[in-house]
Amino acid sequence: TTKFDIVEHSHRRFNPLTNSWVLCSPHRTKRPWQGQVEAATHEVLPEFEPNCYLCPGNVRAQGGVNPNYENTFIFNNDFAAVRKEQPEFSNSSISEKFSSLLRLESVRGECKVICYSPKHNVTMAEMSESSILEIIKHWILSFLSLSIHDYVFYIQIFENKGSIMGCSNPHPHGQMWCTSVIPEEPSKEISSMRSYYDSHGSCLLCDYVSLETPLNNITNTITSAESNNSRVICENNSFLCLIPFWAIWPFETIIISKQHITKITDLNEQQQSDFANIMRRITCRYDNLFECSFPYSMGIHQAPVDNAEHDFDSHLHVHFYPPLLRSPTIKKFMVGYELLAEPQRDLTPEQAATRLRACSEIHYKLSPD
Amino acid sequence: TTKFDIVEHSHRRFNPLTNSWVLCSPHRTKRPWQGQVEAATHEVLPEFEPNCYLCPGNVRAQGGVNPNYENTFIFNNDFAAVRKEQPEFSNSSISEKFSSLLRLESVRGECKVICYSPKHNVTMAEMSESSILEIIKHWILSFLSLSIHDYVFYIQIFENKGSIMGCSNPHPHGQMWCTSVIPEEPSKEISSMRSYYDSHGSCLLCDYVSLETPLNNITNTITSAESNNSRVICENNSFLCLIPFWAIWPFETIIISKQHITKITDLNEQQQSDFANIMRRITCRYDNLFECSFPYSMGIHQAPVDNAEHDFDSHLHVHFYPPLLRSPTIKKFMVGYELLAEPQRDLTPEQAATRLRACSEIHYKLSPD
Ligand SMILES: O=P(O)(O)O[C@H]1O[C@H](CO)[C@@H](O)[C@H](O)[C@H]1O
Ligand SMILES: O=P(O)(O)O[C@H]1O[C@H](CO)[C@@H](O)[C@H](O)[C@H]1O
Repeated sequence: TTKFDIVEHSHRRFNPLTNSWVLCSPHRTKRPWQGQVEAATHEVLPEFEPNCYLCPGNVRAQGGVNPNYENTFIFNNDFAAVRKEQPEFSNSSISEKFSSLLRLESVRGECKVICYSPKHNVTMAEMSESSILEIIKHWILSFLSLSIHDYVFYIQIFENKGSIMGCSNPHPHGQMWCTSVIPEEPSKEISSMRSYYDSHGSCLLCDYVSLETPLNNITNTITSAESNNSRVICENNSFLCLIPFWAIWPFETIIISKQHITKITDLNEQQQSDFANIMRRITCRYDNLFECSFPYSMGIHQAPVDNAEHDFDSHLHVHFYPPLLRSPTIKKFMVGYELLAEPQRDLTPEQAATRLRACSEIHYKLSPD
Repeated sequence: TTKFDIVEHSHRRFNPLTNSWVLCSPHRTKRPWQGQVEAATHEVLPEFEPNCYLCPGNVRAQGGVNPNYENTFIFNNDFAAVRKEQPEFSNSSISEKFSSLLRLESVRGECKVICYSPKHNVTMAEMSESSILEIIKHWILSFLSLSIHDYVFYIQIFENKGSIMGCSNPHPHGQMWCTSVIPEEPSKEISSMRSYYDSHGSCLLCDYVSLETPLNNITNTITSAESNNSRVICENNSFLCLIPFWAIWPFETIIISKQHITKITDLNEQQQSDFANIMRRITCRYDNLFECSFPYSMGIHQAPVDNAEHDFDSHLHVHFYPPLLRSPTIKKFMVGYELLAEPQRDLTPEQAATRLRACSEIHYKLSPD
């Protein structure tokens, strides 16, 4: 070939949300793997586990007793990373000369755990849309009640799924960490979106949705001559789910609201149902990809609750960062080059999207055959 | 307590090199761990392994045969992430309107693998300083010969050690990835150092070395009333090794040259020996911390070879990013909150430094008792 081919030649792609690059080496998918293999987890779990500190009626790590909850249940993390009350830090002791090298600030806040279901042995991928809607309603209510505190400026909703992602309990649950500061990642996104708005007069993610929407067909201009080179996986009236052009993780996805909505509390009833619909469909496709309970870290990015104006720099979206690369036991290692130089991927985002598009939206465990 | 205490209260610290924050929750060290435990690797390896593609005289993945090398040996990565020659990408096909959302550039380069020793069963931690000096001399020679190519603008020297860090072969080796672009991480550091220089008229890392140098004693102003609150682990005439104030990984360290040197090719004979000395001492302390072969990703940051002026924005240093937290089998998971919001640590950098300072510089396997 003398012409640049996106599935053959090394290139880097720019992430306009975080303002950073990722190296893509598609020809490297041929590399054999002789390294660490993860334990396969085909363990069958019971619906109720007497030793689980998240199951209804059981006792938690620091003595609290769970109610016999029927849908979702929220409680304070027993080992919270931030606390409501603590003394303020004063940096008056740092000499002027070194104040830009030793910067420290106190962080207050609150950490919540949300059980998604009383059942120990399900995950979002196997739940009904109406049960997922319960989780979404719970996020919304908690968001509202947490945002009124003076020590809450940002609410990070997230989930670690699978032991490979540091999750210490398979009982389906997520977390909400609220802090008196806007954390690094959302803060980077907010500033990128603000400068995008300043120079384009439009919202970065609204424009991205329009660019990736199948009918507009603009994506074709930057992909190879493959017959199917879209990055979109699935969609409904309110949300688009796709592998972003700049994805780092092999099967990373982003769910973006089609309307310009800045936070979950602004979703109307129909949009809430559509949110549950798209969450079920993508998590189900994930499980079906390698026929395993697909691990990931998932999180919602939205407007801060710091009382500043965020209409132009925030747009509700969900990131899924799944570590698996080739099978239930072979993950992508984000190590040496990635940590020290630049994230690197082999599979192109377009190739990954093609694979996820081919997956069914009926869970393999519930599938008739 | 009504006074802010750095070992008790949540805070965030700013990394002036990468321009980002890390959340520190010291009271969380009390959290029990019920999650994934890594396989302990106390396997005894032979000095020569017939099936190892890095041992002298053996055949490699794509058919090359290793010479009977006696110190170090360098060859082309059989599955290189970048290649010397490939067509250029032209982005003329992207409509103006979306060119800031779909940014892609071609990347050329070269990937090298460097075997540190003919012995299959050693690591830098157990090698003599004279053998480590051979590696350093090899880095310098390779750096010089690689930097002359038109497709080399940055040379990233790094090592992934341990299967937990994605290393697929225990034979001691590192890599050099050379690219036609300056990758993300060094590029962020360069721009931070440049703006620091612009506003302070001095080098960020020179100032940081002076701040952390034990005699200057400035660090005490921002740490708690602990008797020993330095972040320094060890030093010699040419290098300082410490846990940076803004470290993310539990036992992350940085080695900084005391003199303002921008790249390894500028080290004189004495400084090269001092470099070998400090590398041996920190890797040995790492192994002694949990009495295991301590995994990490390590990498050298230095001036690009792009012919621009880098005297004021580059300063030779080495980062060690080790994943272990509490034992040879319990690592820190950089997952949900870390990926989506902000890196988080429990142990303070000062506490981690105290632990590494207490470790011997004689390797536990070689220790008389
Ligand atoms: O090049 P290796 O050692 O085969 O591969 C390892 O290091 C690379 C560079 O950090 C990573 O991209 C890979 O994920 C990792 O498995
Ligand atoms: O809070 P958990 O589930 O106990 O802990 C897990 O998630 C946290 C937030 O991403 C991480 O900091 C921990 O390393 C991880 O083990």
